[in-house]
Amino acid sequence: MAKSKYEYVRNFETSDKLLPSTWLVVRIDGQGFTKFTKLHEFKKPNDIRALNLMNQAAKTVMESMDEIVLGYGQSDEYSFVFSKDAKAYERRAGKITTLLVSRFTSAYVFYWTEFFPDTPLKVPPAFDSRVVMYPSDRILRDYLCWRQVDCHINNLYNTCFWTLVNKGRLSQKDAEKRLSGTLSKDKNELLFGEFGVNYNDELDIFKKGSVLIRNKELIDVIDPNGQVTKRTKVVVCILHCDIIKDAFWNKHPEIIRGRPTGTERRQMRKEQREIELAAEKECATETQPQ
Amino acid sequence: MAKSKYEYVRNFETSDKLLPSTWLVVRIDGQGFTKFTKLHEFKKPNDIRALNLMNQAAKTVMESMDEIVLGYGQSDEYSFVFSKDAKAYERRAGKITTLLVSRFTSAYVFYWTEFFPDTPLKVPPAFDSRVVMYPSDRILRDYLCWRQVDCHINNLYNTCFWTLVNKGRLSQKDAEKRLSGTLSKDKNELLFGEFGVNYNDELDIFKKGSVLIRNKELIDVIDPNGQVTKRTKVVVCILHCDIIKDAFWNKHPEIIRGRPTGTERRQMRKEQREIELAAEKECATETQPQ
Amino acid sequence: MAKSKYEYVRNFETSDKLLPSTWLVVRIDGQGFTKFTKLHEFKKPNDIRALNLMNQAAKTVMESMDEIVLGYGQSDEYSFVFSKDAKAYERRAGKITTLLVSRFTSAYVFYWTEFFPDTPLKVPPAFDSRVVMYPSDRILRDYLCWRQVDCHINNLYNTCFWTLVNKGRLSQKDAEKRLSGTLSKDKNELLFGEFGVNYNDELDIFKKGSVLIRNKELIDVIDPNGQVTKRTKVVVCILHCDIIKDAFWNKHPEIIRGRPTGTERRQMRKEQREIELAAEKECATETQPQ
Amino acid sequence: MAKSKYEYVRNFETSDKLLPSTWLVVRIDGQGFTKFTKLHEFKKPNDIRALNLMNQAAKTVMESMDEIVLGYGQSDEYSFVFSKDAKAYERRAGKITTLLVSRFTSAYVFYWTEFFPDTPLKVPPAFDSRVVMYPSDRILRDYLCWRQVDCHINNLYNTCFWTLVNKGRLSQKDAEKRLSGTLSKDKNELLFGEFGVNYNDELDIFKKGSVLIRNKELIDVIDPNGQVTKRTKVVVCILHCDIIKDAFWNKHPEIIRGRPTGTERRQMRKEQREIELAAEKECATETQPQ
Repeated sequence: MAKSKYEYVRNFETSDKLLPSTWLVVRIDGQGFTKFTKLHEFKKPNDIRALNLMNQAAKTVMESMDEIVLGYGQSDEYSFVFSKDAKAYERRAGKITTLLVSRFTSAYVFYWTEFFPDTPLKVPPAFDSRVVMYPSDRILRDYLCWRQVDCHINNLYNTCFWTLVNKGRLSQKDAEKRLSGTLSKDKNELLFGEFGVNYNDELDIFKKGSVLIRNKELIDVIDPNGQVTKRTKVVVCILHCDIIKDAFWNKHPEIIRGRPTGTERRQMRKEQREIELAAEKECATETQPQ
Repeated sequence: MAKSKYEYVRNFETSDKLLPSTWLVVRIDGQGFTKFTKLHEFKKPNDIRALNLMNQAAKTVMESMDEIVLGYGQSDEYSFVFSKDAKAYERRAGKITTLLVSRFTSAYVFYWTEFFPDTPLKVPPAFDSRVVMYPSDRILRDYLCWRQVDCHINNLYNTCFWTLVNKGRLSQKDAEKRLSGTLSKDKNELLFGEFGVNYNDELDIFKKGSVLIRNKELIDVIDPNGQVTKRTKVVVCILHCDIIKDAFWNKHPEIIRGRPTGTERRQMRKEQREIELAAEKECATETQPQ
Repeated sequence: MAKSKYEYVRNFETSDKLLPSTWLVVRIDGQGFTKFTKLHEFKKPNDIRALNLMNQAAKTVMESMDEIVLGYGQSDEYSFVFSKDAKAYERRAGKITTLLVSRFTSAYVFYWTEFFPDTPLKVPPAFDSRVVMYPSDRILRDYLCWRQVDCHINNLYNTCFWTLVNKGRLSQKDAEKRLSGTLSKDKNELLFGEFGVNYNDELDIFKKGSVLIRNKELIDVIDPNGQVTKRTKVVVCILHCDIIKDAFWNKHPEIIRGRPTGTERRQMRKEQREIELAAEKECATETQPQ
Repeated sequence: MAKSKYEYVRNFETSDKLLPSTWLVVRIDGQGFTKFTKLHEFKKPNDIRALNLMNQAAKTVMESMDEIVLGYGQSDEYSFVFSKDAKAYERRAGKITTLLVSRFTSAYVFYWTEFFPDTPLKVPPAFDSRVVMYPSDRILRDYLCWRQVDCHINNLYNTCFWTLVNKGRLSQKDAEKRLSGTLSKDKNELLFGEFGVNYNDELDIFKKGSVLIRNKELIDVIDPNGQVTKRTKVVVCILHCDIIKDAFWNKHPEIIRGRPTGTERRQMRKEQREIELAAEKECATETQPQ
């Protein structure tokens, strides 16, 4: 189509490409959520519906951007880790952060009624997002440690605070005073000693947050003749586990290792095929007429 | 609260402050809207419901960010002009673009059923956004010219295209071929000569897009005793007018001129008060028992 | 030539283009000059040789980059103003700042002996440089005001300080104490009352710094036959004048106005030709055999 | 000192801090050196005086910035590698590149007569510089491979070209044609077959460029009583060796490994002390009266 003489204004756009071969972490964060959670009467200290909605929105994001290798969420924030060699939108910072936050917000509003069937959404919520580059695997893991430690510290505090308010009948001001200067140990003792609450028994989703990774799962594919075949499919799954210690990373080496090369992929396909065949065989045995 | 040893990862965040005293234009743009509009059976070439929804989302954005002095929308895109001296989020590019696009998207999904009562939203839509700095008033106006000329060119083309397809019974391929190489004049003649359509009679919202500005309006304030007082209030209003020629800018000098200084504000308040008093007087006369 | 497999490392270079239609100011600044000036026994408070050397280096820079419209120097710093529409090195910040500072430094060392014939250069000096964008003419002028006011404040202080030390026989510490908290008025009175020094009589190069602009001058061009013709040529010339008030800018409107358009250039060439012809005529009259 | 109302112009300066924990490579490059080398009649294909001057300028730079762990130079360019954890000038890109290039240029002009005693410097030379971030050790090494392979390719070509011109009496145009499309093997054969030149016998400084690293050396320290003690001192030394293969990096692990931690430093000091004591002992034996 015809170009107008005004096209020159495009020259004022600037480049914002991120460094290659570097981990990209996009973190989205609820804007004014103190007010938003009050308005919608979120349960304190944790509202499981709200956390599940966050997870659903994050899952939607991960399903639409396949270079995200891990998601980590807690409270009203979510971090998304793009693989070191991600090529999405030519690694343009603006494109990545705005599209991601738009998708997240969109899904949050879209799925609201599914998670809050009895609470109508009163105002449209908003999130901001930022992208940070991390040059090494170690620093990337330290970033995730930072967020999970933050989750732990906040949740322990909030659990104490709301226990003092709800069960201890303290005012919010007094609860704050009571907790001022206390260490983790003190807070654990307070919960157990005064209220019989064992912090360890709290839900993992509260204590550790949510970890989204891609997993290969065996699924049934049914062909037009009703024949069932087993196939592996990559799906996003949600965990509530520790990501600070090595165990998690040893169990999921592909997160750090990144995309397999051609040879690796061939080997992996061979192994997958064997798993599928073994599963089919077993399945066939089970369903055989006796 | 306690800081963890992992806090150092925050040092990897970089500054992205935009130049002071420069017009900031944030443009949001529908992501994959060709597919989205088909899925929700948008009317072609223009779906008034969709345009009104875009305007409602843009209005929500403008009401939440008071440094936006003008919005301009057409098709699946919207531009927002921040005043030259805007201070929002310390002029951090990332904060401004991500929050704005998040609010826009949120409102788009939130208000969907109001504008599409009979069409359920099937998938969550997404938008990207970018910010561009324009150093002078003239270049800012050229930017807006660029978008409105783009609106005109696209709308004339699309009007012809869908007239050929819907009324002329041409295939989409043939319609494209028929229009290839034609000028504006040719397209106008084609519409009128072959289909009796006068392009000038098309709706302004289609031909010129939508312009959002802030306007002072006289509103009634009712006090506890039922006493009615007139007050001026700034509201966002939607126009469908030319913003290329000087007329619009002469009529709304405050857009370019920016925030009034203290002295100007005092003078303006005085004038407003006079308008309100005159209105009240007139009102009193009207409602006086005869 | 053959490209190596290592070429991919070039992808890590990032873009740093400056905004179009914006004034660019590059300021260079002496690095560790307190030590450098002591080592080479610069005269205090001002060493005219050093200032002239700075001016010579700045002139060399301006002669090599024709989009610089003005230079302003004082002490061990120099600012260079690029025209708003400068295209040099595609407006890449890194290219512009590094080449400019390299040329400046190079010329400083190259011309040292010319200005310091009796003082061998003992160590190679260094300068840093930065570029700042200014969106409007007013802000550009405010930048230059900032530097010239700085020159005035520093020079008045230094003149007092070294007068107290050199003529007043105060220690540097006592001179500092004596000046602490004084205003401009006090410093002028101190100079005049105690030492009979009228600050106004100080050299303009000390009080106002140096301003480099391009000027058209009439020069003699001698052809192979010995025939002398007058031609105008643009040369860099050095002034020591006020650049805060309007007078300077009214006298040199071309600095802000920027490059003339085609029509303006034709008109200017015509006027120049007339000046040249008038000069030639006058010249011919003078040299006519009587 | 008093601040002027113009100070606000400083707010237009923008931040350009480089990512932490990332290798920084600053490369300086001669500006218009084709012309400069002709003007000063540099020997072709290599002028050993010019290369030694470049090395001297690079050494001066490394001695003034102790976070540079390696320098690599060839032709009219030089690369400087800053340690991953370098803190110089808060990692501000502009400060680092401009100061470095200024120091390099300054030293180049300052030391000119020492290396070109019979060739007066006619014009001040200039260099540009840029900084690139490399996130991993492997990519940093690939960068250096890129430059050394470039050195090899250019030098082999230039050696052939100037041999054809100087010994083969070909015009420059014919020499170019003759070499067009040839591989390394062909060029080696051409040199040996037609001119009896074994490329391997060329100087390493031409074939491999120059590598600057810091080395600990034993030096004599003489105290006021004339007593000689051995001490280790870090000095910049120049090598002309391969930096593509592992051998170099295995021999100098400290370049990649970076700054030793406190414990490592204590261990290293202990080892150094032992070397010094052993040297002193040996020295004492040698100088003992027999």
